[in-house]
Amino acid sequence: MPPVEASAWTRLPAAAEVEALRAAAASAYGAPDAAHVVPAPGTQILIETLPRLVAPTRVAVVGPTYAEHEAAWVRAGHVVTPVDGIAAIGDAAVAVLVDPNNPDGRTHPLVERLALAEALRARGGLLVADEAFADLEPVASLCRHAAAGLVVLRSFGKTYGLAGLRLGFAIADPGTADRIRTALGPWAVSGPALAIGRTALSDTVWRAETARARAADAARLDRLIARGGGTLVGGTSLFRTADFPDGAGLYRRLAEAGIAVRRFPERPARLRFGLPAGKAAWCRLSRVLK
Amino acid sequence: MPPVEASAWTRLPAAAEVEALRAAAASAYGAPDAAHVVPAPGTQILIETLPRLVAPTRVAVVGPTYAEHEAAWVRAGHVVTPVDGIAAIGDAAVAVLVDPNNPDGRTHPLVERLALAEALRARGGLLVADEAFADLEPVASLCRHAAAGLVVLRSFGKTYGLAGLRLGFAIADPGTADRIRTALGPWAVSGPALAIGRTALSDTVWRAETARARAADAARLDRLIARGGGTLVGGTSLFRTADFPDGAGLYRRLAEAGIAVRRFPERPARLRFGLPAGKAAWCRLSRVLK
Repeated sequence: MPPVEASAWTRLPAAAEVEALRAAAASAYGAPDAAHVVPAPGTQILIETLPRLVAPTRVAVVGPTYAEHEAAWVRAGHVVTPVDGIAAIGDAAVAVLVDPNNPDGRTHPLVERLALAEALRARGGLLVADEAFADLEPVASLCRHAAAGLVVLRSFGKTYGLAGLRLGFAIADPGTADRIRTALGPWAVSGPALAIGRTALSDTVWRAETARARAADAARLDRLIARGGGTLVGGTSLFRTADFPDGAGLYRRLAEAGIAVRRFPERPARLRFGLPAGKAAWCRLSRVLK
Repeated sequence: MPPVEASAWTRLPAAAEVEALRAAAASAYGAPDAAHVVPAPGTQILIETLPRLVAPTRVAVVGPTYAEHEAAWVRAGHVVTPVDGIAAIGDAAVAVLVDPNNPDGRTHPLVERLALAEALRARGGLLVADEAFADLEPVASLCRHAAAGLVVLRSFGKTYGLAGLRLGFAIADPGTADRIRTALGPWAVSGPALAIGRTALSDTVWRAETARARAADAARLDRLIARGGGTLVGGTSLFRTADFPDGAGLYRRLAEAGIAVRRFPERPARLRFGLPAGKAAWCRLSRVLK
């Protein structure tokens, strides 16, 4: 991590620092330019904010996926239907597609995602494309196709192992980007997050080393999962999902060891593991998966 | 500043850390308990969020004051009337009162603010009491009177000279607090902000030293203002507002020196100075105000 200047803590973030981060993110994610980029204190607040910028309508969430999307659209008064694939979206006005998907790593070819975006745009709708786990995967991003009717979400903290920093982005047409920025206000992202985000996103070596480190982490996690009797069902470089002979029992043993994994009530055999952060966390996991 | 553990950057903030900060803030601000406290990445995002949690209605903003309140309620579709005092609020459903006021430092006796909160509550309305500048002033807070129909805003960064950290709070009845927390999502505040905020708010010595330091800064700023020909019209320990024989010319000279002060189109003689952050900023200001 680069050293953070004292002024990043003491001063209210300057507009020029926000602009510099937007430009670095546009370049890193392949968005047309900085006007298409909204920095936020993590993607979660974007997931909460987007539904409140759209008048109540019919929303399709392609799943099973990260549950917060459906919950946030429901909270904002929309009628939400979980669907199991793009074909089932029908004529909903808003579609949410997490790609690569969490928890199973499922991806769709770019041409399918583009066609979906076009179809929604043609009927005045919106595609929310959550690419929180796209950074390190060999998938093509929708960011360079940002236009009206499409909002792409990208996560910084997940990729760089800096989840506590709270930094994520929405990529959208400039008009929509402005509306999201206004909802968050001008200083939602901390000075350290602006500085570290800008440095990291501009640093292709850092990015490449991060990709290598995460791939090594994922391979190490796969070995532990195999040793613990698990069968991998999917994932990305940032999480792995597997089925276990006694998923419920393992979940309990992990919880007792202070390790949070995601379980799936309808599939008790299945558990989703994030990458352990730090040596102690790896050791804890290793002691349970043996 | 206390050292920040690496895990504050690397891990997603844990619910227990958020709870610990809420408890520390409740104690520091005199709120009934942690359930009344909403941490946020600065108060600005709370100013943007509150108007979107209220169905469009008539809003009175006691001013002249910080312009973002009126702007945010207008953006959310409310009918906003600026008024010049509590007596002029009339039967508006929502009232915004900044106390101590920015930019003139005006305060109202607690009994008047409590009566206003009661009147609004009695008609199912809401008082937004912005106490962003209350920390270091000899004023009584509404925080200990948190109940339905009252939301108090408190700023951490301003007081502690850590504006870049992005940390502020809403104090409200538990139901309203939950609605605001849901709008922000569970991880809007960064790990370092959670850790530093909790430590500082629990540390009465740090608090007392901060009060002393800010009072000394304010006195130093007053001397510079007097040397520059200004007549103080109000302020708090965190900002000073003064009239100058040639306010417009001074504003220009300050801008040329890279110093941002607030001006008032309707009162060109008047300028509002924040406390300079750091030695270089004091030197720059000293060179202009001579």
